[in-house]
Amino acid sequence: MEKEALVDLRQVIPGDRMFLDLAERYCYSYDASFGEYLPEIVIQPKNAEEISEVVKLANTHKIPVYPRGSGTSLSGGPLPVKGGMVLDMTLLRDKLIIDRENMLAIVSPGVITADIHKKAEEAGLFYPPDPSSSNVATIGGNLLENSSGPKGLKYGTTKEYVIGLEVVTPTGEIIRTGGKTVKNVTGYDLTRLIVGSEGTLGIVTEAIIRLIPKPQSKQTFVAHFNHLIDSGHAITSILSSGILPSALELMDNACIRAVESYRPSGLPLQAEAILIIEIDGHPLAIEEEINKCADICRAEGASYVKIAETEEERQTIWSARQSVSPAITQMGPTKISEDATVPRSQIPAMMERLNNIREKYGLNLVVFGHAGDGNLHPNIITDKRNITEMKKVELAVSEIFEAAIELGGTLSGEHGIGTLKSPYMEMELGITGVNMMKKIKEAWDPNNILNPGKIFPDKGQTRVVLVT
Amino acid sequence: MEKEALVDLRQVIPGDRMFLDLAERYCYSYDASFGEYLPEIVIQPKNAEEISEVVKLANTHKIPVYPRGSGTSLSGGPLPVKGGMVLDMTLLRDKLIIDRENMLAIVSPGVITADIHKKAEEAGLFYPPDPSSSNVATIGGNLLENSSGPKGLKYGTTKEYVIGLEVVTPTGEIIRTGGKTVKNVTGYDLTRLIVGSEGTLGIVTEAIIRLIPKPQSKQTFVAHFNHLIDSGHAITSILSSGILPSALELMDNACIRAVESYRPSGLPLQAEAILIIEIDGHPLAIEEEINKCADICRAEGASYVKIAETEEERQTIWSARQSVSPAITQMGPTKISEDATVPRSQIPAMMERLNNIREKYGLNLVVFGHAGDGNLHPNIITDKRNITEMKKVELAVSEIFEAAIELGGTLSGEHGIGTLKSPYMEMELGITGVNMMKKIKEAWDPNNILNPGKIFPDKGQTRVVLVT
Repeated sequence: MEKEALVDLRQVIPGDRMFLDLAERYCYSYDASFGEYLPEIVIQPKNAEEISEVVKLANTHKIPVYPRGSGTSLSGGPLPVKGGMVLDMTLLRDKLIIDRENMLAIVSPGVITADIHKKAEEAGLFYPPDPSSSNVATIGGNLLENSSGPKGLKYGTTKEYVIGLEVVTPTGEIIRTGGKTVKNVTGYDLTRLIVGSEGTLGIVTEAIIRLIPKPQSKQTFVAHFNHLIDSGHAITSILSSGILPSALELMDNACIRAVESYRPSGLPLQAEAILIIEIDGHPLAIEEEINKCADICRAEGASYVKIAETEEERQTIWSARQSVSPAITQMGPTKISEDATVPRSQIPAMMERLNNIREKYGLNLVVFGHAGDGNLHPNIITDKRNITEMKKVELAVSEIFEAAIELGGTLSGEHGIGTLKSPYMEMELGITGVNMMKKIKEAWDPNNILNPGKIFPDKGQTRVVLVT
Repeated sequence: MEKEALVDLRQVIPGDRMFLDLAERYCYSYDASFGEYLPEIVIQPKNAEEISEVVKLANTHKIPVYPRGSGTSLSGGPLPVKGGMVLDMTLLRDKLIIDRENMLAIVSPGVITADIHKKAEEAGLFYPPDPSSSNVATIGGNLLENSSGPKGLKYGTTKEYVIGLEVVTPTGEIIRTGGKTVKNVTGYDLTRLIVGSEGTLGIVTEAIIRLIPKPQSKQTFVAHFNHLIDSGHAITSILSSGILPSALELMDNACIRAVESYRPSGLPLQAEAILIIEIDGHPLAIEEEINKCADICRAEGASYVKIAETEEERQTIWSARQSVSPAITQMGPTKISEDATVPRSQIPAMMERLNNIREKYGLNLVVFGHAGDGNLHPNIITDKRNITEMKKVELAVSEIFEAAIELGGTLSGEHGIGTLKSPYMEMELGITGVNMMKKIKEAWDPNNILNPGKIFPDKGQTRVVLVT
């Protein structure tokens, strides 16, 4: 960091919120993907005005700026890949206001997502997006990555709930987008452009999110299938019957085995798939619907169907799903978590492609995910120090992307492009599609200050997995 | 139109789909707002490739291009305000494919919105956005204006249903955005940027829209209130009770009188407000919910509450609401239909402001709208040849915008900015906000070819109503 830049920054940010020591900087060099990049400086701003000043200085001195929440990104979102400055956004957490009358929440970006769930529920309201990291992740990170979790099928993604933002632009201006009304067509929808932009188009300093009435009750059931294809048919039949579950989760055989070996609970080791289905709504309606879903699963060949009768039984069903991440984390030091997404009718075909990829490369590939909206999470468990295997991983990941796109799907359903998928953008969007995005980035961020190195590939960059 | 441009265009579009005669051009000089601008040429393209060629030529010869559906815009969306070329998109109507398994529809832009409703329902599915023009309007126009209708409260707006587009860019490239999956975070959300961009950022040539299961049944009731403020409290109480109606419509006293004088049906002339509420979902659930809503209205002081027991009674309740537009059209030759939108808790305050504006200027101001999401439609009925009154209208409209923004709302909930509201953009967004939008427009459309004259004000433009 050049001296003049530092002198300028000290005018804006007090020393106790500015970190230059190696040890401190190391704490900000990683996220939940597996890259590691050391920033030159870490700053903890307290409000939009400070961020505005810092970003203006960053433009003057051409310093890359990397906003960061809790660092739970699986795609390298906050990694300071070009060095420069990390903005630790966690001190911006003063606002979590539930406006019951207008059914919305006004939140600071550093607020933990689970705290929004809690506060909303206390007011009889509901914020559906629920990424599995929601107890740790900040809402700012959720918004910028548009990370959504299991409820997309019925309730849509994070984007569907953000109606207004306060944003510091890449040149350091403070703007407001959208507002407190669900209907708003005054000019271009900058709110939705910035949500999911992975911190490349602006730094969110406040958000207005729409809430909905809390569903009165919910019911859950689990179904085991000896044949994966039957579970695919069951999913389609349920959705065609006019029932929209609030969650429809799938675990494949490798996943079932991983969970059972991590914490034995009598899961069926021979089953090719487990479906967990949850329905919420009016108690009378869901009673009828859950039985209909169970009947459909039986008719489609489920070997076992169990509707939870008590909250305890409900928790037991979900505990298998919740054990997936810890279970596979135990299987090896490096976990590559993908989120290739296909139209839901293509789930059986995608599962077959994933099986072929697993066999072809002999990798530890575990599949689970939000099957109801086609959002699968193929996870490869490996060791990044094993260069031979990492080369196979590289090829396997690339084939996973190809399969998703060939089946009419997308590279990323909710984790973002980050550093890991940027070389594949063109495969999905074409050169012109990528260029239209770049034009926006260049128009808004002429010095390429905000989160550089994401989401567009560097010239000639073709690798996915960053083998060192 | 210069000769060379015409020669080039004839290479791309056959003569029977190209109109130069004054009479033919007149047919394309208006929309449902009250502006009139004559295009130099009208072209009826048949597919994306032709549009791409035409737009490229338009860039070469610097000819403004105005895409147009059925011309039902209330904000001047398709008006060729700078002359040039109108693209009549109604021949692009070959695709209306319902994909039941993936719960989506693939549609051409010239398809009539009501036909999508019909086809979806035949497959047991449901496309919620339902602008009052849906029997006439094209889906392409709906998308580009993000026009939504009464169901926004429960189901969100048009934007929430568009997941993929084929688009001709302002420089004539054909790109695809999004796809067939609800979850898609590969790069910036160009889909939502283009939806609602009022034809300034691209010409939609195909759209993928998400459908949901068709609600099993619905129930409707009407409540009369002697005091407007009580109806406001009833709205808030209903929404706070955890019930989300599929429609929550309001008519004010002037509106009630207009409808009753147009087609007498015993509406209460002394009532300050009528609420029409519809609930859809599982029959058992809505039976309980509709009674709860009716009880709330009674408790909040409704003078009359009636739940429809038969489909005929349901139709009778809705017929009052459906008569609003024809009724007020009869009241005078010029109707200025606004769609100022406020956070729903501010509806009573907004209604009071509208009353004051009505009295201050002595205008024929009728208010109705989608009260559940704060989306009001104040309509001023006047005669555009009456210059003295039009000057008052000018001032009144401007005060309506000011009121909406002061109450935390927006200039436009669903009609768009078009030509009519562009001078007011800055009032809501600030200079920087407008500039961020302009930067996108300039980066994508360097020659300002697509729909110029919208949505940004010309330099020094301050008028709302175009008094001639």
